[in-house]
Amino acid sequence: MNGAQSMLRTLVNSGVDVCFANPGTSEMHFVAALDSVPEMRGVLGLFEGVVTGAADGYARMLDRPAATLLHLGPGMANGLANLHNARRAGTPIVNVVGDHATYHKSLDAPLESDIDALAGWSSAWTRTSARAQDVGKDAADAVAAALHPPGQVATLVLPADASWSEGGAVADPVRRARPRTVPENAVEELAEVLGRGESTVLLLGGHATREAELLAASRIAAVTGARLFAETFPARLERGAGLPAVEKLGYLAEQVTYQLTDVRHLVLIGSRPPVSFFAYPGKPSELTPEGCTVHRFAGPADDTADALARLADRVAPDAAPVLAEPTRPELPTGELTAQTVAEAIGALLPEGAIVSDEANTSGLMLPMSTAGAPRHDWLALTGGAIGQGMPVATGAAIACPDRPVICLESDGSAMYTLSALWTQAREQSNVTTVVFSNRSYAILRMELQRVGAETSGTAAAELLDIGRPDLDFVALAGGMGVPASRAGTAEEFTAQFSKALGEPGPHLIEAVVPSLL
Amino acid sequence: MNGAQSMLRTLVNSGVDVCFANPGTSEMHFVAALDSVPEMRGVLGLFEGVVTGAADGYARMLDRPAATLLHLGPGMANGLANLHNARRAGTPIVNVVGDHATYHKSLDAPLESDIDALAGWSSAWTRTSARAQDVGKDAADAVAAALHPPGQVATLVLPADASWSEGGAVADPVRRARPRTVPENAVEELAEVLGRGESTVLLLGGHATREAELLAASRIAAVTGARLFAETFPARLERGAGLPAVEKLGYLAEQVTYQLTDVRHLVLIGSRPPVSFFAYPGKPSELTPEGCTVHRFAGPADDTADALARLADRVAPDAAPVLAEPTRPELPTGELTAQTVAEAIGALLPEGAIVSDEANTSGLMLPMSTAGAPRHDWLALTGGAIGQGMPVATGAAIACPDRPVICLESDGSAMYTLSALWTQAREQSNVTTVVFSNRSYAILRMELQRVGAETSGTAAAELLDIGRPDLDFVALAGGMGVPASRAGTAEEFTAQFSKALGEPGPHLIEAVVPSLL
Repeated sequence: MNGAQSMLRTLVNSGVDVCFANPGTSEMHFVAALDSVPEMRGVLGLFEGVVTGAADGYARMLDRPAATLLHLGPGMANGLANLHNARRAGTPIVNVVGDHATYHKSLDAPLESDIDALAGWSSAWTRTSARAQDVGKDAADAVAAALHPPGQVATLVLPADASWSEGGAVADPVRRARPRTVPENAVEELAEVLGRGESTVLLLGGHATREAELLAASRIAAVTGARLFAETFPARLERGAGLPAVEKLGYLAEQVTYQLTDVRHLVLIGSRPPVSFFAYPGKPSELTPEGCTVHRFAGPADDTADALARLADRVAPDAAPVLAEPTRPELPTGELTAQTVAEAIGALLPEGAIVSDEANTSGLMLPMSTAGAPRHDWLALTGGAIGQGMPVATGAAIACPDRPVICLESDGSAMYTLSALWTQAREQSNVTTVVFSNRSYAILRMELQRVGAETSGTAAAELLDIGRPDLDFVALAGGMGVPASRAGTAEEFTAQFSKALGEPGPHLIEAVVPSLL
Repeated sequence: MNGAQSMLRTLVNSGVDVCFANPGTSEMHFVAALDSVPEMRGVLGLFEGVVTGAADGYARMLDRPAATLLHLGPGMANGLANLHNARRAGTPIVNVVGDHATYHKSLDAPLESDIDALAGWSSAWTRTSARAQDVGKDAADAVAAALHPPGQVATLVLPADASWSEGGAVADPVRRARPRTVPENAVEELAEVLGRGESTVLLLGGHATREAELLAASRIAAVTGARLFAETFPARLERGAGLPAVEKLGYLAEQVTYQLTDVRHLVLIGSRPPVSFFAYPGKPSELTPEGCTVHRFAGPADDTADALARLADRVAPDAAPVLAEPTRPELPTGELTAQTVAEAIGALLPEGAIVSDEANTSGLMLPMSTAGAPRHDWLALTGGAIGQGMPVATGAAIACPDRPVICLESDGSAMYTLSALWTQAREQSNVTTVVFSNRSYAILRMELQRVGAETSGTAAAELLDIGRPDLDFVALAGGMGVPASRAGTAEEFTAQFSKALGEPGPHLIEAVVPSLL
């Protein structure tokens, strides 16, 4: 058994049975080993940003890692931006990077580079397998590292000779760390604070945006009057009719300041104190209101479900959670706008949908229009590195083939990792992509004003305008094997969206909308 | 004057007047400053790999840097692979990375990351401008660093507050380092070696693949019998009728071993000793033949033109260079193959063409078919990180708007940075892209055999097959505003290629060819 075969067998034994891959020559023995470990499913991406983003989406849905397969330093470099998002999401990923044979590295061949530097940038855990004999054990350790609470990017560098040499040994799964249990005195102290009747916010983040935590938090809120917020960009927010409705903190500092007005106690549960996404001249970066006490009740690596359950049993033993009623917008008619697209999606969102949301400015109305839709999961752009939406949708569809995946994309972001569509076509994934085509980096037009930049001419405006020439997403999707259509009215959008949801396989709808900003 | 304005004015004063950009909020003051420094031309890319690759292509043609503008760590991450290629090419680039305001960094906002780690991976010189007062001086230093022989990636990190704060001061251009002069005794020693009449190869790399060096090297070869080779992936090889013909070292170790059979002296001129691109089990990685003496005559940072001129004047004072005769293949007819496409390109390549070559396996016949075509420049994939071809073509066209640019692309590589086509359409660049569409990672099918990987089934083959579904490059190009057509016969290709060359603006031809391998 060579090193590559021991790696694949160990990964499968450790519960990792999907590998998103964009291989090269140094990974050929890993690729060949797929034929001897048929339990491992290889999924090809045409660009590494698709590979890493798909691994992120997959693990957000299943809470266990997929593997990636990347080609040396440059391949890893191409996958970094979505590893950044995965790191921010607390997503477990076993990131496998092929490297030159150990004895080849000192020759500084063209593809040679410092992979450790890239791994350090993106990963909580990094190791290089020096010999075939070590590969199995290293792979088992990598899975355990990826699953270290709350979830981490673990990068395992696999030199070509460690991969091709005989001597590989399959390793047993390694015991994983459990989330830390929040101590009882912390529960007691917070119960006392909640009992004071002062203005309190429970800020839910990380794993605390899932059902168990939401139900407990809602019971606590019902009794104590505390308000619930989710962090601005949750990795996975469970929501819809039958679940507690939780408003997200806004993207703009001004929104957060408004949402937290007069709050005296901010309780962090899997979340961190709110900060402005960017700095703006003369505006605060830290958004916790003056005079507000921050209570770090449970961190991202803590057992938030257990902690909230104990807190709820203490302060609200008999209370029931407040659940969102089923309610949908009317099907819109007339002009197609960000508003009417949002209404149509709210009206038609299917039960059990997974929404990968990178709609940016065009998506501002979506949380409201879908709040009472059937239960669904919402996957947000956790790290701000655009190009996440389509890959995450692709991976979520591999993870949950029986659930409909809706990918909400802005046109600017869509162009980063567009070839995710090809993987969707190849895998016949049930992903319906809606591109909000407003032909501009609309968010930057807003930000240009907000940062106080003064412009006197057209040179600056030119760099925010992506409508010269117009991008034709129907042609682009068709070029990658995804059936696509363009909607110019609300009626057209509604008809196309319904049709896409009713058919198997991927679809794309280009929704031509005016910029909101 | 704020920091951003001082940066742009300083860059222009230092000879940097094009900025390839994909900005975000933290770069808005830089963008706004474009309106106050109209000499700086902003060119928008829809993905950072396009931005950095275009900067590479631009500077390969003009020997002076363009600036880039990238958005924080994730934006830089997306641009790394083509910075890797630029680093291997010895290309000068002033890589400007916007960052959060200095006081905002410790808050670990979503886009926060360790930019220095990425800069260290890719750049020979890195600095962060701490204050607006420093930005001008730092920019001037960055240009000088980029121009340090042979050319380097210089990364300047620009925090948002250094950009927006008043106090910016324009700096004068900084004096640049000159290439080192090769000492006279090295010339004497090599002249002695060349006089022995033993089998000698002059291996030309870096700047030594340009006209002056080629002419001198050809004179030397004519008198001494030394043979000339260019490195496998030259950054810019000047070639064609009227210039000395220089064969490139092969990509495969087996080819190099053949080319260097019985060579007793290998003279490095801007080049490095040949090594195998990848390691293969049981095969050598170092390709210098046994018993061959390596003479490190001139390194990449040395003045190769001067050194070769002095050597030629010494050993071949009266010799004339051997120049390639004008000769072209016949226009091909019949089946479209990698061979007939190569013949058609050789038959039609226009005078002064710039060829950006990422044709990989499909391009094996191109060097022969174009050797006697009118004089042209050949830009190769220097660092092996695919996704270079279309961005480099884009930048070369910005640098040399009056010259025809031909981009030769393989289908797999084309999908990495495809949105370069959009920038070509926006700038109405005279780029004709030929995509060799063989629907596979053909090079990997070959490499799977060469590394000795045994496969028993279809799982491995699946990961090398990009023909399910087929990519439709005509649709993809059209979706980005580039007129495109598909050629299935040699006659169709010839007609489409001629038409594309005869019209202004970008074009794409999808050449459907069987895989060579």
